[in-house]
Amino acid sequence: MAIRIGILGYGNLGRGIECAVKQNPDMELVAVFTRRAPESVKILTPNVSVYHVDEAVSKKDEIDVLILCGGSATDLPVQTPEYAKYFNVVDSFDTHARIPEHFANVDAAAKESGKVAMISVGWDPGMFSLNRLYANAILPDGKDYTFWGKGVSQGHSDAIRRVEGVKDGKQYTIPVDSALEAVRSGSNPELTTRQKHIRECFVVAEEGADLAKIEQEIKSMPNYFADYDTIVNFISEEELKRDHSGIPHGGFVIRSGKTGWNGEHQHIVEYNLKLDSNPEFTASVITAYARAAYRMQKDGQTGCKTVFDVAPVYLSNSSAEDLRAHLL
Amino acid sequence: MAIRIGILGYGNLGRGIECAVKQNPDMELVAVFTRRAPESVKILTPNVSVYHVDEAVSKKDEIDVLILCGGSATDLPVQTPEYAKYFNVVDSFDTHARIPEHFANVDAAAKESGKVAMISVGWDPGMFSLNRLYANAILPDGKDYTFWGKGVSQGHSDAIRRVEGVKDGKQYTIPVDSALEAVRSGSNPELTTRQKHIRECFVVAEEGADLAKIEQEIKSMPNYFADYDTIVNFISEEELKRDHSGIPHGGFVIRSGKTGWNGEHQHIVEYNLKLDSNPEFTASVITAYARAAYRMQKDGQTGCKTVFDVAPVYLSNSSAEDLRAHLL
Repeated sequence: MAIRIGILGYGNLGRGIECAVKQNPDMELVAVFTRRAPESVKILTPNVSVYHVDEAVSKKDEIDVLILCGGSATDLPVQTPEYAKYFNVVDSFDTHARIPEHFANVDAAAKESGKVAMISVGWDPGMFSLNRLYANAILPDGKDYTFWGKGVSQGHSDAIRRVEGVKDGKQYTIPVDSALEAVRSGSNPELTTRQKHIRECFVVAEEGADLAKIEQEIKSMPNYFADYDTIVNFISEEELKRDHSGIPHGGFVIRSGKTGWNGEHQHIVEYNLKLDSNPEFTASVITAYARAAYRMQKDGQTGCKTVFDVAPVYLSNSSAEDLRAHLL
Repeated sequence: MAIRIGILGYGNLGRGIECAVKQNPDMELVAVFTRRAPESVKILTPNVSVYHVDEAVSKKDEIDVLILCGGSATDLPVQTPEYAKYFNVVDSFDTHARIPEHFANVDAAAKESGKVAMISVGWDPGMFSLNRLYANAILPDGKDYTFWGKGVSQGHSDAIRRVEGVKDGKQYTIPVDSALEAVRSGSNPELTTRQKHIRECFVVAEEGADLAKIEQEIKSMPNYFADYDTIVNFISEEELKRDHSGIPHGGFVIRSGKTGWNGEHQHIVEYNLKLDSNPEFTASVITAYARAAYRMQKDGQTGCKTVFDVAPVYLSNSSAEDLRAHLL
């Protein structure tokens, strides 16, 4: 029998989960829950119903894993502990600093209900975290580097749009090639914020707006742009739509470390992602961990889990025997 | 109390384990076992004894994990099932085609003794296998590529040395840049053996040997060189010693896959290693998995395990809380 998946929240991430479930023959989408009017939400999968979120708990016996697609700021801190009372759940909580607190809340709920609740799944936190852990465990004497991009930062794009005279805008975070090369060379550079990433903005200005003033305001914005070399390009609304409507992202996790009796040998471990669609890739990671959540709970595990707690064999639709014979 | 490590077999890999144990404060080397005369084997760690391999079993209560550093052809198929009767063990069995059979033999022994026996640990099999599994689970609709190098192939270096008129030699496996770039572009190329790797040989000829004949014989050698573009360089013994005495290696695992309702988005997941010392890096991976073997057995697990069965949290000397707070 297929693993029955529910999706709570149908934005870019929820739609990505729907697409990922379609690619996994051992899974089946059984319900989508939304805060909007259900009849206003059109999904892609035929013969699957959309319900109001208030109906979710009543469907608990029809769903093996409920995937929570809300935001980290206000949705998930409430939703994940709440739904872990009734379901195996997976979320993509990504406020790094608040993970310990979120873990504690979710763990209490999931231990009480006997469910598995997987938090902070995606690529950062998620696959990047895993690669940091593996490389640190292997090379204890070393240094970690994370670069993001080239990709769209939602937060920085929002910040541009709040500037007076800006009609619309998109911001790309771009890793600096020379910094990446320095890290890969094993020279263990100390890199400032400015040396690691460039920020490139594509801005649609309102008619008659003062472009020089907009550019100046963006470049000097504290927290978002002031510490970076920022490029501001003014383009038309048509160009923005034509050339910048995708949501690509990616990045690099690199550890440089030494081995040998006197640290005489250098090693570079690198993991990198180049993603056409940030939400769809995140959703694909979450979907694999939904499979793991289901299986781990079947094996008698309960409580809050992160990617660190999941034996890789739980993620694959292939059997352990097949994996050993073909992928090991 | 530190995890007490024993090393069986003191070649390049055994020495690498010794160096890695020194880097991990929660571990302690307690014994080295050798088939040679113990007094002829000098190790680096002060106050640790070298014993004949026949004494290993008598030390079973003094060792938490015994690391088996023999070869895959004849040593490990016998040693791993044998020592799993008495110890938690880790090996680096790397004959991919025989892993299922090795697993079955080791599993039976370790289940019987209540120990954990971790097999095929290193980077390929090992970290490369893990990255294949993760990327396959995340992107089920995709294609895998593995490239090796630039690095020294022991088997190919041995093959060169068997050619008449050759005094000594080293062979480097080198991935072809244009093939790597084609894979990274997402074009999903079908690549022949010749298109993926170049083989470069550094050969010291015996005095008066027929160099053209040696070159021809190497380049046409079936299995080893005939299917590749091979470069043969003749150098002096001094040059070989000066420039080619290291054991570097590395490689690339890349998965290219699609997501979206109609597969409209492309993603590239890449893991790569650049290693100054192949045996020391392999040893560092094994040492992290020795920690995991010890902890998993303490948690009540038994039997044969591979990297696929190990939750990443078991590998790190940091606590789960620390990992969530700092690496997630």
